[in-house]
Amino acid sequence: MEACKKIIGLLNTVKEKNPLVHHLTNYVTVNDCANITLAIGASPVMADDINEVTDMVSLASSLVINIGTLNERTVESMLAAGKRANELNIPIIIDPVGAGATAYRTETAKRLMDELEIAVIRGNLSEIKTLYGIKAQTKGVDSSEDISSSQDELENAKELAVDFAKKINTVIAITGVIDIITDGRTLYTVENGHKIMSKVTGTGCMCTSLIGSYLGARENNLLAALSGVVSMGIAGEIAYENLSGNYGGTGSLKVGILDVIFNLNEEVIMKRGKINEECCKL
Amino acid sequence: MEACKKIIGLLNTVKEKNPLVHHLTNYVTVNDCANITLAIGASPVMADDINEVTDMVSLASSLVINIGTLNERTVESMLAAGKRANELNIPIIIDPVGAGATAYRTETAKRLMDELEIAVIRGNLSEIKTLYGIKAQTKGVDSSEDISSSQDELENAKELAVDFAKKINTVIAITGVIDIITDGRTLYTVENGHKIMSKVTGTGCMCTSLIGSYLGARENNLLAALSGVVSMGIAGEIAYENLSGNYGGTGSLKVGILDVIFNLNEEVIMKRGKINEECCKL
Amino acid sequence: MEACKKIIGLLNTVKEKNPLVHHLTNYVTVNDCANITLAIGASPVMADDINEVTDMVSLASSLVINIGTLNERTVESMLAAGKRANELNIPIIIDPVGAGATAYRTETAKRLMDELEIAVIRGNLSEIKTLYGIKAQTKGVDSSEDISSSQDELENAKELAVDFAKKINTVIAITGVIDIITDGRTLYTVENGHKIMSKVTGTGCMCTSLIGSYLGARENNLLAALSGVVSMGIAGEIAYENLSGNYGGTGSLKVGILDVIFNLNEEVIMKRGKINEECCKL
Repeated sequence: MEACKKIIGLLNTVKEKNPLVHHLTNYVTVNDCANITLAIGASPVMADDINEVTDMVSLASSLVINIGTLNERTVESMLAAGKRANELNIPIIIDPVGAGATAYRTETAKRLMDELEIAVIRGNLSEIKTLYGIKAQTKGVDSSEDISSSQDELENAKELAVDFAKKINTVIAITGVIDIITDGRTLYTVENGHKIMSKVTGTGCMCTSLIGSYLGARENNLLAALSGVVSMGIAGEIAYENLSGNYGGTGSLKVGILDVIFNLNEEVIMKRGKINEECCKL
Repeated sequence: MEACKKIIGLLNTVKEKNPLVHHLTNYVTVNDCANITLAIGASPVMADDINEVTDMVSLASSLVINIGTLNERTVESMLAAGKRANELNIPIIIDPVGAGATAYRTETAKRLMDELEIAVIRGNLSEIKTLYGIKAQTKGVDSSEDISSSQDELENAKELAVDFAKKINTVIAITGVIDIITDGRTLYTVENGHKIMSKVTGTGCMCTSLIGSYLGARENNLLAALSGVVSMGIAGEIAYENLSGNYGGTGSLKVGILDVIFNLNEEVIMKRGKINEECCKL
Repeated sequence: MEACKKIIGLLNTVKEKNPLVHHLTNYVTVNDCANITLAIGASPVMADDINEVTDMVSLASSLVINIGTLNERTVESMLAAGKRANELNIPIIIDPVGAGATAYRTETAKRLMDELEIAVIRGNLSEIKTLYGIKAQTKGVDSSEDISSSQDELENAKELAVDFAKKINTVIAITGVIDIITDGRTLYTVENGHKIMSKVTGTGCMCTSLIGSYLGARENNLLAALSGVVSMGIAGEIAYENLSGNYGGTGSLKVGILDVIFNLNEEVIMKRGKINEECCKL
């Protein structure tokens, strides 16, 4: 309940401040990322040319770097934008899409981690394991591993997240059936969402854009990550419940997710948020 | 009423001629631009490589240049396509997305204006002010200024539009709460639309693609600009009215806008069009 | 009926194996391609940088090459990914979007055909004629020719498809009002679909991604092509029937197509599939 109230507070701040969220992201889900950023109450801008990224990020309240369709040109822009963001204390979230699938993705994600100070990293378990340095099983950009309900696996994933967060002083968000969000001191698990969400491309990217939007309020990185994850989970589960008839499917689900985020409010968050908070072991 | 009838006439011509509209546009809203071009009755083609843009534009009835996610490679292609379009008297519409936000966008938009003969420029007030040479307040790609109901501001914006249109011999369309469209001799204000449209990415880009589609009928640039702006406004307000229940939001709104444009007809335009026409002061 | 049963079998295999389908595709319809690949039960990955395409395709079960917004950088990546796919016996489908519209598209499509071993080519009649070597009428990326109900034209298109398939030892799929699919020995005509589908961008690309998904099951290239074409046609016609009220249009149609594909099953295919099978003349 306490966590839900904090999320509501941050949501209201986003709606009030309407922060500009600069995205360097992929061309697959970019439209959905822009629309979900608008729906939550922030303002997206997509710009990736080296001639303008440092200017653009200077106007922004947060920076989203998503490597979903990275290439040599945009990787340079990501680094340039990130460095400028660091100079101006603009928080950065990285979405290491497909890290582990190819050496180029893994190396680029690591390079971004090494050269930039990152506020939040959000990925699936495979991607986070890869960045942490464990050889992970990946399948393209989808995790082929998940945090199952097995208590052991969940505990292992939590430990990994906490250790990683401490080591690089960054909030780590691992999303899956159960989501883990931690800054190394406090750890949240979230049980919102529905498995059908994995059948819509970009639910991970959209979650990252939501976290980017919350980061733009410039209050608390851990709370921003939690807020994005909970918002996305609630949107997915309500959108799923609203699918009607024989032909409700993933087309309608995506539309519904944007609709729910646009209408997200105190009542929905208080009623729906399934958040567990714990202190991390030292 | 007179203006509405002309729009209906032009809409019918578009549906009859099915003009090919070559787009060099951004990767954020490109899918919506293609779909709205099809929905109004034209035919979109997106091609941006320097090896083919002059060939492609030669087949087209109009050219849309949108700098939403410009880069060095595509800017060269925009100029090449534009020059070929000028040689062949194919009308060009420019959407100077984010002009004023970064020097690169401002300079590119001005370069396009300087090197090409443009039929129509459509932008928000910040973008048009920037191109006109007034330092404007911008926030990423969204206007942070708008034409409010204040009579003074509206008059100032009209004067600017008229003067700009005369100076560069181009139709200027400023879209916002009240839209202004002028060729420097006749000025239209349009009060269709709904403020929720600003919460869907690409409503500006889609309006530009609609104008591009109407330009493809090759009748009258001013009427094409007016037709695009009125069509988009009507689509937004009907789509808003059709949102149903607790979770109608911006996901459904975008789908609805395309649906309305697909069904746009004489009856709807006559009933909905809120257009005021005036002669420009010399 | 026999063909429908085989399609159902292949659909079940796709859902069971969840094959990874590597796409090098255009930025206009890429999101819809990813979502339809997920909806049918496969897993899409989009990657186009030369630094990673050979690694990525090595993980994949099939490769989709779509030249809708080709450029020099991505064409090199298409060739590199394709060559690696050939080495690993990973089936390739090519969608020669706009072949015939510009020399660059025609030459690129032919270069892909020459340098790679292709499992399936899917295009409209103009595109396939262009690749076959007949001067075709094209209009941007839309076919300006179609297989009409005229028996003569249909027979000509069939002969062309059979001869082309034999010559290059590749399954040829020509989609239009009537679809033709052949490997040069067996020929299928399919009469599913609805003409409104041509008013949504990317129905061709989505069909290609469906074929790519079926190819990922690694059973039978001809059956994969047939399955993709029939699935897309059924999706379009059901989505059209489900459009409701005054403002059902092409926005809703696209959402509906994804919904239907997500729910595609034995019952629907058996009830809807309109397939005719014939042996090819020698």
